[in-house]
Amino acid sequence: MSLLNRLLLTCLVVVTSVLLVETCNEVVCGPLVSKCMLIKCCDCEMTDLRNCTCCRECQLCLSKLYTECCSCVGLCPPPDLDDELDKGSTVEHLKDPIPALFDVLTEQEDIQQRWTTFTYAIDLNRVNKSSSKHPQLGISVSKNRDADLDNGDDNLQSKPNSRIHNCTTAFFSSCMAVGKCKASCKSMGASKYRWFHEHGCCQCIGNTCFDYGLIEPRCLRCPEPTETTFGDQPYSWADNVKAMYQTDSSSFDTLS
Amino acid sequence: MSLLNRLLLTCLVVVTSVLLVETCNEVVCGPLVSKCMLIKCCDCEMTDLRNCTCCRECQLCLSKLYTECCSCVGLCPPPDLDDELDKGSTVEHLKDPIPALFDVLTEQEDIQQRWTTFTYAIDLNRVNKSSSKHPQLGISVSKNRDADLDNGDDNLQSKPNSRIHNCTTAFFSSCMAVGKCKASCKSMGASKYRWFHEHGCCQCIGNTCFDYGLIEPRCLRCPEPTETTFGDQPYSWADNVKAMYQTDSSSFDTLS
Repeated sequence: MSLLNRLLLTCLVVVTSVLLVETCNEVVCGPLVSKCMLIKCCDCEMTDLRNCTCCRECQLCLSKLYTECCSCVGLCPPPDLDDELDKGSTVEHLKDPIPALFDVLTEQEDIQQRWTTFTYAIDLNRVNKSSSKHPQLGISVSKNRDADLDNGDDNLQSKPNSRIHNCTTAFFSSCMAVGKCKASCKSMGASKYRWFHEHGCCQCIGNTCFDYGLIEPRCLRCPEPTETTFGDQPYSWADNVKAMYQTDSSSFDTLS
Repeated sequence: MSLLNRLLLTCLVVVTSVLLVETCNEVVCGPLVSKCMLIKCCDCEMTDLRNCTCCRECQLCLSKLYTECCSCVGLCPPPDLDDELDKGSTVEHLKDPIPALFDVLTEQEDIQQRWTTFTYAIDLNRVNKSSSKHPQLGISVSKNRDADLDNGDDNLQSKPNSRIHNCTTAFFSSCMAVGKCKASCKSMGASKYRWFHEHGCCQCIGNTCFDYGLIEPRCLRCPEPTETTFGDQPYSWADNVKAMYQTDSSSFDTLS
Protein backbone atom coordinates (compact mmCIF):
# COMPACT_ATOMS: atom_id res chain seq x y z
CA MET A 1 0.00 0.00 0.00
CA SER A 2 1.45 3.34 -1.03
CA LEU A 3 1.94 6.23 1.36
CA LEU A 4 -0.85 8.13 -0.38
CA ASN A 5 -3.26 5.24 0.07
CA ARG A 6 -2.34 4.92 3.75
CA LEU A 7 -2.91 8.65 4.21
CA LEU A 8 -6.31 8.49 2.48
CA LEU A 9 -7.30 5.48 4.55
CA THR A 10 -6.32 7.25 7.77
CA CYS A 11 -8.27 10.35 6.74
CA LEU A 12 -11.34 8.26 5.94
CA VAL A 13 -11.22 6.54 9.28
CA VAL A 14 -10.74 9.85 11.10
CA VAL A 15 -13.61 11.53 9.24
CA THR A 16 -15.85 8.52 9.86
CA SER A 17 -14.93 8.57 13.54
CA VAL A 18 -15.72 12.29 13.86
CA LEU A 19 -19.12 11.73 12.26
CA LEU A 20 -19.76 8.77 14.52
CA VAL A 21 -19.24 10.80 17.68
CA GLU A 22 -22.25 12.91 16.87
CA THR A 23 -24.70 10.32 15.63
CA CYS A 24 -23.97 6.92 17.10
CA ASN A 25 -22.09 4.80 19.56
CA GLU A 26 -18.49 5.08 18.38
CA VAL A 27 -17.16 2.33 20.60
CA VAL A 28 -19.69 -0.20 19.37
CA CYS A 29 -20.03 0.89 15.75
CA GLY A 30 -16.71 2.52 14.87
CA PRO A 31 -14.76 -0.47 13.56
CA LEU A 32 -17.70 -2.05 11.71
CA VAL A 33 -18.87 1.19 10.11
CA SER A 34 -15.32 2.00 9.00
CA LYS A 35 -15.08 -1.43 7.40
CA CYS A 36 -18.44 -1.07 5.62
CA MET A 37 -17.43 2.34 4.31
CA LEU A 38 -14.06 1.12 3.15
CA ILE A 39 -15.47 -1.81 1.20
CA LYS A 40 -18.06 0.58 -0.29
CA CYS A 41 -21.04 -1.34 1.06
CA CYS A 42 -22.69 1.77 2.46
CA ASP A 43 -21.36 4.25 -0.03
CA CYS A 44 -24.40 5.51 -1.92
CA GLU A 45 -27.23 8.04 -1.75
CA MET A 46 -29.77 6.98 0.89
CA THR A 47 -32.27 9.81 0.84
CA ASP A 48 -34.52 7.96 -1.61
CA LEU A 49 -34.70 4.47 -0.14
CA ARG A 50 -36.90 3.17 -2.95
CA ASN A 51 -34.02 3.74 -5.38
CA CYS A 52 -31.17 3.06 -3.00
CA THR A 53 -28.52 1.01 -4.78
CA CYS A 54 -26.48 -0.01 -1.74
CA CYS A 55 -29.01 -0.26 1.10
CA ARG A 56 -29.41 -4.01 0.93
CA GLU A 57 -25.63 -4.62 0.96
CA CYS A 58 -25.19 -2.00 3.66
CA GLN A 59 -27.67 -3.56 6.10
CA LEU A 60 -26.05 -6.95 5.47
CA CYS A 61 -22.61 -5.48 6.17
CA LEU A 62 -23.87 -4.06 9.49
CA SER A 63 -24.94 -7.60 10.33
CA LYS A 64 -25.95 -8.13 13.97
CA LEU A 65 -25.17 -4.50 14.78
CA TYR A 66 -27.77 -3.18 12.33
CA THR A 67 -30.00 -1.68 15.04
CA GLU A 68 -27.16 -0.05 16.92
CA CYS A 69 -25.26 1.26 13.88
CA CYS A 70 -27.68 1.91 11.00
CA SER A 71 -27.91 5.58 11.95
CA CYS A 72 -24.12 5.95 11.65
CA VAL A 73 -24.34 5.45 7.89
CA GLY A 74 -27.58 7.39 7.38
CA LEU A 75 -29.72 4.31 6.72
CA CYS A 76 -32.05 4.99 9.69
CA PRO A 77 -32.67 7.95 12.03
CA PRO A 78 -30.51 8.23 15.16
CA PRO A 79 -31.98 6.47 18.20
CA ASP A 80 -33.92 8.59 20.64
CA LEU A 81 -32.18 7.85 23.91
CA ASP A 82 -34.92 9.66 25.86
CA ASP A 83 -37.58 7.47 24.30
CA GLU A 84 -39.96 6.07 26.88
CA LEU A 85 -42.39 3.21 26.72
CA ASP A 86 -45.26 5.06 28.32
CA LYS A 87 -47.41 5.02 25.20
CA GLY A 88 -47.42 1.23 25.06
CA SER A 89 -50.29 -1.04 26.02
CA THR A 90 -50.56 -4.61 27.22
CA VAL A 91 -53.08 -6.62 25.17
CA GLU A 92 -54.32 -10.19 25.38
CA HIS A 93 -57.05 -12.43 24.01
CA LEU A 94 -59.20 -13.92 26.79
CA LYS A 95 -60.30 -17.52 26.89
CA ASP A 96 -63.99 -18.41 26.97
CA PRO A 97 -65.59 -14.97 26.50
CA ILE A 98 -69.33 -14.61 27.16
CA PRO A 99 -70.67 -12.22 24.50
CA ALA A 100 -74.21 -12.25 25.93
CA LEU A 101 -72.91 -11.11 29.32
CA PHE A 102 -70.80 -8.36 27.74
CA ASP A 103 -73.92 -7.22 25.88
CA VAL A 104 -75.97 -7.10 29.10
CA LEU A 105 -73.32 -4.95 30.77
CA THR A 106 -72.65 -2.56 27.90
CA GLU A 107 -75.96 -2.10 26.08
CA GLN A 108 -76.90 0.82 28.31
CA GLU A 109 -74.86 3.56 29.90
CA ASP A 110 -73.63 2.48 33.32
CA ILE A 111 -75.45 4.83 35.69
CA GLN A 112 -72.92 4.07 38.42
CA GLN A 113 -70.04 5.17 36.18
CA ARG A 114 -68.01 2.06 36.91
CA TRP A 115 -67.20 1.96 33.19
CA THR A 116 -67.93 3.94 30.05
CA THR A 117 -69.08 2.11 26.94
CA PHE A 118 -68.02 3.11 23.44
CA THR A 119 -69.43 1.78 20.23
CA TYR A 120 -66.72 1.70 17.67
CA ALA A 121 -67.45 1.56 13.97
CA ILE A 122 -64.88 0.84 11.31
CA ASP A 123 -65.43 1.05 7.58
CA LEU A 124 -63.60 -1.90 6.09
CA ASN A 125 -63.60 -0.18 2.70
CA ARG A 126 -61.30 2.45 4.16
CA VAL A 127 -58.99 0.23 6.15
CA ASN A 128 -56.61 -0.17 3.22
CA LYS A 129 -56.18 3.58 3.08
CA SER A 130 -55.20 3.72 6.72
CA SER A 131 -51.69 4.97 7.26
CA SER A 132 -49.53 5.06 10.32
CA LYS A 133 -50.21 8.77 10.63
CA HIS A 134 -53.92 7.97 10.92
CA PRO A 135 -53.87 4.58 12.60
CA GLN A 136 -57.62 4.55 13.12
CA LEU A 137 -58.80 6.17 9.90
CA GLY A 138 -62.28 5.00 9.00
CA ILE A 139 -63.28 4.72 12.62
CA SER A 140 -66.22 6.49 14.17
CA VAL A 141 -66.75 6.36 17.90
CA SER A 142 -69.84 7.00 19.96
CA LYS A 143 -70.69 6.57 23.60
CA ASN A 144 -73.10 3.69 24.10
CA ARG A 145 -74.35 1.44 21.37
CA ASP A 146 -77.77 3.08 21.07
CA ALA A 147 -76.37 6.47 20.24
CA ASP A 148 -75.89 7.75 16.72
CA LEU A 149 -72.42 7.33 15.39
CA ASP A 150 -70.62 10.60 15.36
CA ASN A 151 -67.23 12.23 15.82
CA GLY A 152 -65.87 10.64 12.65
CA ASP A 153 -64.86 12.77 9.71
CA ASP A 154 -67.93 11.31 7.98
CA ASN A 155 -71.05 9.72 9.30
CA LEU A 156 -70.26 6.12 8.49
CA GLN A 157 -73.86 5.04 8.79
CA SER A 158 -74.95 7.27 5.97
CA LYS A 159 -72.93 5.52 3.29
CA PRO A 160 -74.97 2.79 1.64
CA ASN A 161 -71.99 0.92 0.20
CA SER A 162 -69.70 1.11 3.19
CA ARG A 163 -68.94 -2.14 4.97
CA ILE A 164 -69.48 -0.99 8.53
CA HIS A 165 -68.18 -3.23 11.24
CA ASN A 166 -69.28 -2.31 14.76
CA CYS A 167 -67.67 -3.26 18.00
CA THR A 168 -68.16 -2.23 21.59
CA THR A 169 -65.56 -1.59 24.26
CA ALA A 170 -65.82 -0.53 27.90
CA PHE A 171 -63.30 1.64 29.74
CA PHE A 172 -63.24 1.30 33.52
CA SER A 173 -63.38 4.68 35.20
CA SER A 174 -60.58 4.07 37.70
CA CYS A 175 -56.96 3.12 37.07
CA MET A 176 -56.03 -0.42 38.04
CA ALA A 177 -53.24 -3.02 37.93
CA VAL A 178 -52.91 -5.15 34.82
CA GLY A 179 -53.97 -8.31 36.68
CA LYS A 180 -57.14 -6.66 37.89
CA CYS A 181 -57.80 -5.33 34.38
CA LYS A 182 -57.64 -8.86 32.98
CA ALA A 183 -59.82 -10.28 35.77
CA SER A 184 -62.34 -7.43 35.40
CA CYS A 185 -62.64 -7.89 31.65
CA LYS A 186 -63.06 -11.66 32.08
CA SER A 187 -65.82 -11.03 34.61
CA MET A 188 -67.61 -8.87 32.03
CA GLY A 189 -67.42 -11.62 29.40
CA ALA A 190 -65.05 -9.60 27.18
CA SER A 191 -62.97 -11.22 24.44
CA LYS A 192 -59.82 -9.10 24.84
CA TYR A 193 -58.42 -6.36 26.98
CA ARG A 194 -56.04 -3.47 26.50
CA TRP A 195 -54.25 -2.02 29.51
CA PHE A 196 -52.58 1.34 28.94
CA HIS A 197 -49.14 1.54 30.56
CA GLU A 198 -49.00 5.25 31.28
CA HIS A 199 -51.54 5.36 34.09
CA GLY A 200 -53.19 1.93 34.13
CA CYS A 201 -56.40 2.70 32.23
CA CYS A 202 -58.24 -0.54 31.38
CA GLN A 203 -60.33 -1.22 28.23
CA CYS A 204 -62.45 -4.40 27.82
CA ILE A 205 -63.14 -5.37 24.21
CA GLY A 206 -66.20 -7.19 22.88
CA ASN A 207 -66.23 -10.26 20.65
CA THR A 208 -67.24 -8.39 17.49
CA CYS A 209 -64.04 -6.34 17.48
CA PHE A 210 -61.24 -7.77 15.37
CA ASP A 211 -58.57 -5.47 16.73
CA TYR A 212 -57.66 -4.24 20.21
CA GLY A 213 -60.19 -1.45 20.55
CA LEU A 214 -59.36 2.23 20.74
CA ILE A 215 -55.68 3.11 20.87
CA GLU A 216 -56.05 6.06 23.26
CA PRO A 217 -57.16 5.75 26.91
CA ARG A 218 -60.61 7.11 27.74
CA CYS A 219 -60.96 6.25 31.43
CA LEU A 220 -63.08 8.82 33.24
CA ARG A 221 -61.01 9.12 36.40
CA CYS A 222 -57.66 7.75 35.26
CA PRO A 223 -55.37 9.48 35.81
CA GLU A 224 -57.01 11.27 38.69
CA PRO A 225 -56.67 15.05 38.33
CA THR A 226 -54.56 15.19 41.47
CA GLU A 227 -52.35 12.23 40.57
CA THR A 228 -48.79 13.25 41.17
CA THR A 229 -47.53 10.38 43.23
CA PHE A 230 -47.50 6.61 42.99
CA GLY A 231 -47.76 5.32 46.53
CA ASP A 232 -45.52 7.74 48.40
CA GLN A 233 -43.17 8.25 45.44
CA PRO A 234 -43.34 10.83 42.63
CA TYR A 235 -45.36 9.38 39.74
CA SER A 236 -43.37 7.36 37.24
CA TRP A 237 -44.91 5.23 34.50
CA ALA A 238 -42.09 2.70 34.82
CA ASP A 239 -42.69 2.28 38.55
CA ASN A 240 -46.39 2.06 37.76
CA VAL A 241 -45.90 -0.77 35.27
CA LYS A 242 -43.50 -2.67 37.49
CA ALA A 243 -45.63 -2.30 40.60
CA MET A 244 -48.81 -3.21 38.78
CA TYR A 245 -47.24 -6.37 37.39
CA GLN A 246 -46.10 -7.24 40.90
CA THR A 247 -49.61 -6.95 42.30
CA ASP A 248 -51.22 -9.36 39.84
CA SER A 249 -51.81 -12.15 42.31
CA SER A 250 -53.53 -9.81 44.72
CA SER A 251 -56.07 -8.51 42.23
CA PHE A 252 -58.87 -9.99 44.22
CA ASP A 253 -57.56 -9.00 47.60
CA THR A 254 -57.55 -5.29 46.94
CA LEU A 255 -60.75 -3.54 46.12
CA SER A 256 -60.87 -0.39 44.10
CA MET B 1 -91.25 -9.66 61.52
CA SER B 2 -92.68 -13.00 62.57
CA LEU B 3 -90.57 -15.81 63.98
CA LEU B 4 -91.07 -17.81 60.78
CA ASN B 5 -89.84 -14.94 58.66
CA ARG B 6 -86.82 -14.47 60.89
CA LEU B 7 -86.06 -18.17 60.58
CA LEU B 8 -86.38 -18.12 56.81
CA LEU B 9 -84.18 -15.04 56.60
CA THR B 10 -81.51 -16.69 58.75
CA CYS B 11 -81.66 -19.85 56.64
CA LEU B 12 -81.28 -17.83 53.44
CA VAL B 13 -78.25 -15.97 54.79
CA VAL B 14 -76.70 -19.24 56.00
CA VAL B 15 -77.29 -21.00 52.67
CA THR B 16 -75.94 -18.03 50.76
CA SER B 17 -72.88 -17.96 52.99
CA VAL B 18 -72.23 -21.68 52.49
CA LEU B 19 -72.43 -21.25 48.73
CA LEU B 20 -70.13 -18.25 48.89
CA VAL B 21 -67.38 -20.19 50.61
CA GLU B 22 -66.97 -22.41 47.58
CA THR B 23 -67.24 -19.90 44.76
CA CYS B 24 -66.16 -16.48 45.89
CA ASN B 25 -64.58 -14.28 48.50
CA GLU B 26 -67.01 -14.52 51.40
CA VAL B 27 -65.47 -11.72 53.40
CA VAL B 28 -65.67 -9.25 50.56
CA CYS B 29 -68.90 -10.40 48.92
CA GLY B 30 -70.97 -11.98 51.69
CA PRO B 31 -72.94 -8.99 52.96
CA LEU B 32 -73.57 -7.48 49.53
CA VAL B 33 -74.59 -10.79 47.91
CA SER B 34 -76.91 -11.55 50.80
CA LYS B 35 -78.53 -8.15 50.35
CA CYS B 36 -78.92 -8.58 46.58
CA MET B 37 -80.47 -12.01 47.10
CA LEU B 38 -82.82 -10.76 49.78
CA ILE B 39 -84.14 -7.91 47.68
CA LYS B 40 -84.54 -10.36 44.76
CA CYS B 41 -82.21 -8.46 42.46
CA CYS B 42 -80.23 -11.56 41.51
CA ASP B 43 -83.01 -14.07 41.87
CA CYS B 44 -83.62 -15.41 38.36
CA GLU B 45 -82.36 -17.99 35.87
CA MET B 46 -78.98 -16.90 34.48
CA THR B 47 -78.05 -19.78 32.19
CA ASP B 48 -79.50 -18.00 29.15
CA LEU B 49 -78.12 -14.48 29.47
CA ARG B 50 -79.93 -13.28 26.34
CA ASN B 51 -83.25 -13.86 28.12
CA CYS B 52 -82.12 -13.08 31.64
CA THR B 53 -84.78 -11.03 33.40
CA CYS B 54 -82.74 -9.92 36.41
CA CYS B 55 -79.17 -9.64 35.12
CA ARG B 56 -79.23 -5.92 34.60
CA GLU B 57 -80.60 -5.24 38.10
CA CYS B 58 -78.23 -7.80 39.58
CA GLN B 59 -75.06 -6.23 38.15
CA LEU B 60 -76.29 -2.84 39.35
CA CYS B 61 -76.90 -4.24 42.82
CA LEU B 62 -73.35 -5.62 42.93
CA SER B 63 -72.22 -2.09 42.17
CA LYS B 64 -68.46 -1.48 42.59
CA LEU B 65 -67.95 -5.09 43.68
CA TYR B 66 -69.25 -6.50 40.40
CA THR B 67 -65.87 -7.97 39.35
CA GLU B 68 -65.18 -9.54 42.72
CA CYS B 69 -68.69 -10.87 43.40
CA CYS B 70 -70.44 -11.61 40.08
CA SER B 71 -69.44 -15.28 40.29
CA CYS B 72 -71.14 -15.59 43.71
CA VAL B 73 -74.53 -15.16 42.09
CA GLY B 74 -73.77 -17.15 38.94
CA LEU B 75 -73.62 -14.12 36.66
CA CYS B 76 -70.00 -14.77 35.60
CA PRO B 77 -67.56 -17.69 35.96
CA PRO B 78 -65.45 -17.89 39.13
CA PRO B 79 -62.11 -16.09 38.87
CA ASP B 80 -59.09 -18.19 38.01
CA LEU B 81 -56.71 -17.35 40.83
CA ASP B 82 -53.85 -19.15 39.08
CA ASP B 83 -54.33 -17.08 35.95
CA GLU B 84 -51.07 -15.68 34.68
CA LEU B 85 -50.34 -12.84 32.31
CA ASP B 86 -47.76 -14.69 30.27
CA LYS B 87 -49.87 -14.74 27.12
CA GLY B 88 -50.04 -10.96 26.99
CA SER B 89 -48.11 -8.69 24.66
CA THR B 90 -46.95 -5.10 24.79
CA VAL B 91 -47.92 -3.16 21.65
CA GLU B 92 -47.31 0.39 20.50
CA HIS B 93 -47.60 2.57 17.43
CA LEU B 94 -44.25 4.08 16.44
CA LYS B 95 -43.78 7.68 15.38
CA ASP B 96 -42.35 8.49 11.98
CA PRO B 97 -42.15 5.05 10.38
CA ILE B 98 -40.15 4.66 7.17
CA PRO B 99 -42.06 2.21 4.97
CA ALA B 100 -39.42 2.22 2.22
CA LEU B 101 -36.75 1.17 4.73
CA PHE B 102 -38.97 -1.59 6.13
CA ASP B 103 -39.50 -2.82 2.56
CA VAL B 104 -35.75 -2.90 1.86
CA LEU B 105 -35.16 -4.97 4.99
CA THR B 106 -38.04 -7.41 4.59
CA GLU B 107 -38.50 -7.94 0.86
CA GLN B 108 -36.02 -10.83 0.87
CA GLU B 109 -35.27 -13.52 3.40
CA ASP B 110 -32.56 -12.36 5.80
CA ILE B 111 -29.66 -14.68 5.02
CA GLN B 112 -28.08 -13.83 8.37
CA GLN B 113 -31.23 -14.95 10.23
CA ARG B 114 -31.33 -11.78 12.34
CA TRP B 115 -35.09 -11.77 11.71
CA THR B 116 -37.72 -13.82 9.89
CA THR B 117 -40.19 -12.07 7.62
CA PHE B 118 -43.82 -13.14 7.33
CA THR B 119 -46.29 -11.88 4.79
CA TYR B 120 -49.66 -11.79 6.36
CA ALA B 121 -52.84 -11.75 4.31
CA ILE B 122 -56.28 -11.04 5.70
CA ASP B 123 -59.53 -11.36 3.81
CA LEU B 124 -61.66 -8.41 4.88
CA ASN B 125 -64.76 -10.23 3.65
CA ARG B 126 -64.24 -12.79 6.38
CA VAL B 127 -63.29 -10.47 9.22
CA ASN B 128 -66.91 -10.10 10.30
CA LYS B 129 -67.15 -13.84 10.72
CA SER B 130 -64.14 -13.92 12.99
CA SER B 131 -64.94 -15.09 16.47
CA SER B 132 -62.91 -15.07 19.63
CA LYS B 133 -62.32 -18.78 19.21
CA HIS B 134 -60.69 -18.07 15.85
CA PRO B 135 -59.18 -14.66 16.47
CA GLN B 136 -57.28 -14.66 13.19
CA LEU B 137 -59.80 -16.34 10.92
CA GLY B 138 -59.33 -15.28 7.32
CA ILE B 139 -55.61 -14.92 7.74
CA SER B 140 -53.05 -16.70 5.62
CA VAL B 141 -49.39 -16.50 6.50
CA SER B 142 -46.33 -17.14 4.42
CA LYS B 143 -42.63 -16.64 4.98
CA ASN B 144 -41.32 -13.78 2.85
CA ARG B 145 -43.45 -11.62 0.67
CA ASP B 146 -42.44 -13.27 -2.62
CA ALA B 147 -43.63 -16.69 -1.53
CA ASP B 148 -47.04 -18.08 -2.38
CA LEU B 149 -49.59 -17.67 0.36
CA ASP B 150 -50.25 -20.89 2.14
CA ASN B 151 -51.09 -22.40 5.52
CA GLY B 152 -54.56 -20.88 5.49
CA ASP B 153 -57.66 -23.03 5.40
CA ASP B 154 -58.14 -21.66 1.88
CA ASN B 155 -55.77 -20.11 -0.58
CA LEU B 156 -56.86 -16.52 -0.24
CA GLN B 157 -55.25 -15.47 -3.48
CA SER B 158 -57.41 -17.77 -5.52
CA LYS B 159 -60.68 -16.05 -4.66
CA PRO B 160 -61.52 -13.41 -7.23
CA ASN B 161 -63.96 -11.51 -5.02
CA SER B 162 -62.01 -11.57 -1.78
CA ARG B 163 -60.70 -8.26 -0.49
CA ILE B 164 -57.17 -9.35 0.33
CA HIS B 165 -55.18 -7.04 2.51
CA ASN B 166 -51.48 -7.91 2.81
CA CYS B 167 -49.10 -6.87 5.50
CA THR B 168 -45.56 -7.82 6.41
CA THR B 169 -44.05 -8.37 9.83
CA ALA B 170 -40.56 -9.35 10.96
CA PHE B 171 -39.77 -11.46 14.03
CA PHE B 172 -36.30 -11.04 15.49
CA SER B 173 -34.62 -14.40 16.04
CA SER B 174 -33.36 -13.70 19.56
CA CYS B 175 -35.31 -12.72 22.67
CA MET B 176 -34.81 -9.14 23.82
CA ALA B 177 -35.98 -6.52 26.31
CA VAL B 178 -39.02 -4.43 25.42
CA GLY B 179 -36.94 -1.26 25.06
CA LYS B 180 -34.61 -2.92 22.62
CA CYS B 181 -37.60 -4.33 20.73
CA LYS B 182 -39.01 -0.82 20.28
CA ALA B 183 -35.64 0.61 19.25
CA SER B 184 -34.99 -2.26 16.86
CA CYS B 185 -38.37 -1.88 15.17
CA LYS B 186 -37.85 1.87 14.86
CA SER B 187 -34.47 1.28 13.26
CA MET B 188 -36.17 -0.96 10.69
CA GLY B 189 -38.72 1.74 9.82
CA ALA B 190 -41.64 -0.31 11.23
CA SER B 191 -44.99 1.29 12.11
CA LYS B 192 -45.77 -0.78 15.21
CA TYR B 193 -44.25 -3.46 17.36
CA ARG B 194 -45.56 -6.32 19.45
CA TRP B 195 -43.41 -7.70 22.26
CA PHE B 196 -44.52 -11.06 23.68
CA HIS B 197 -44.29 -11.18 27.46
CA GLU B 198 -43.63 -14.87 27.93
CA HIS B 199 -40.08 -14.95 26.62
CA GLY B 200 -39.47 -11.54 25.04
CA CYS B 201 -40.02 -12.39 21.37
CA CYS B 202 -40.17 -9.17 19.28
CA GLN B 203 -42.31 -8.58 16.17
CA CYS B 204 -41.94 -5.46 13.98
CA ILE B 205 -45.04 -4.57 11.97
CA GLY B 206 -45.15 -2.79 8.62
CA ASN B 207 -47.27 0.22 7.67
CA THR B 208 -49.80 -1.73 5.61
CA CYS B 209 -50.98 -3.74 8.62
CA PHE B 210 -54.02 -2.33 10.41
CA ASP B 211 -53.70 -4.56 13.43
CA TYR B 212 -50.78 -5.69 15.58
CA GLY B 213 -49.48 -8.51 13.42
CA LEU B 214 -49.59 -12.17 14.34
CA ILE B 215 -50.81 -13.02 17.81
CA GLU B 216 -48.42 -15.92 18.41
CA PRO B 217 -44.63 -15.55 18.75
CA ARG B 218 -42.56 -16.93 15.89
CA CYS B 219 -39.02 -16.00 16.90
CA LEU B 220 -36.49 -18.55 15.66
CA ARG B 221 -34.33 -18.77 18.76
CA CYS B 222 -36.66 -17.37 21.42
CA PRO B 223 -36.98 -19.07 23.78
CA GLU B 224 -33.69 -20.85 23.35
CA PRO B 225 -34.10 -24.63 23.59
CA THR B 226 -31.95 -24.68 26.72
CA GLU B 227 -33.66 -21.73 28.38
CA THR B 228 -34.46 -22.74 31.92
CA THR B 229 -33.06 -19.82 33.84
CA PHE B 230 -33.33 -16.06 33.71
CA GLY B 231 -29.97 -14.74 34.82
CA ASP B 232 -29.06 -17.11 37.63
CA GLN B 233 -32.70 -17.64 38.67
CA PRO B 234 -35.21 -20.27 37.46
CA TYR B 235 -37.12 -18.87 34.48
CA SER B 236 -40.19 -16.81 35.36
CA TRP B 237 -42.15 -14.74 32.89
CA ALA B 238 -42.93 -12.20 35.59
CA ASP B 239 -39.26 -11.72 36.41
CA ASN B 240 -38.61 -11.53 32.68
CA VAL B 241 -41.15 -8.74 32.18
CA LYS B 242 -39.99 -6.79 35.21
CA ALA B 243 -36.31 -7.13 34.39
CA MET B 244 -36.82 -6.27 30.75
CA TYR B 245 -38.73 -3.13 31.64
CA GLN B 246 -35.90 -2.19 33.98
CA THR B 247 -33.28 -2.49 31.23
CA ASP B 248 -35.01 -0.11 28.80
CA SER B 249 -32.50 2.68 29.18
CA SER B 250 -29.60 0.35 28.51
CA SER B 251 -30.98 -0.98 25.22
CA PHE B 252 -28.10 0.47 23.33
CA ASP B 253 -25.42 -0.48 25.80
CA THR B 254 -26.05 -4.20 25.61
CA LEU B 255 -25.59 -6.01 22.36
CA SER B 256 -27.40 -9.20 21.57
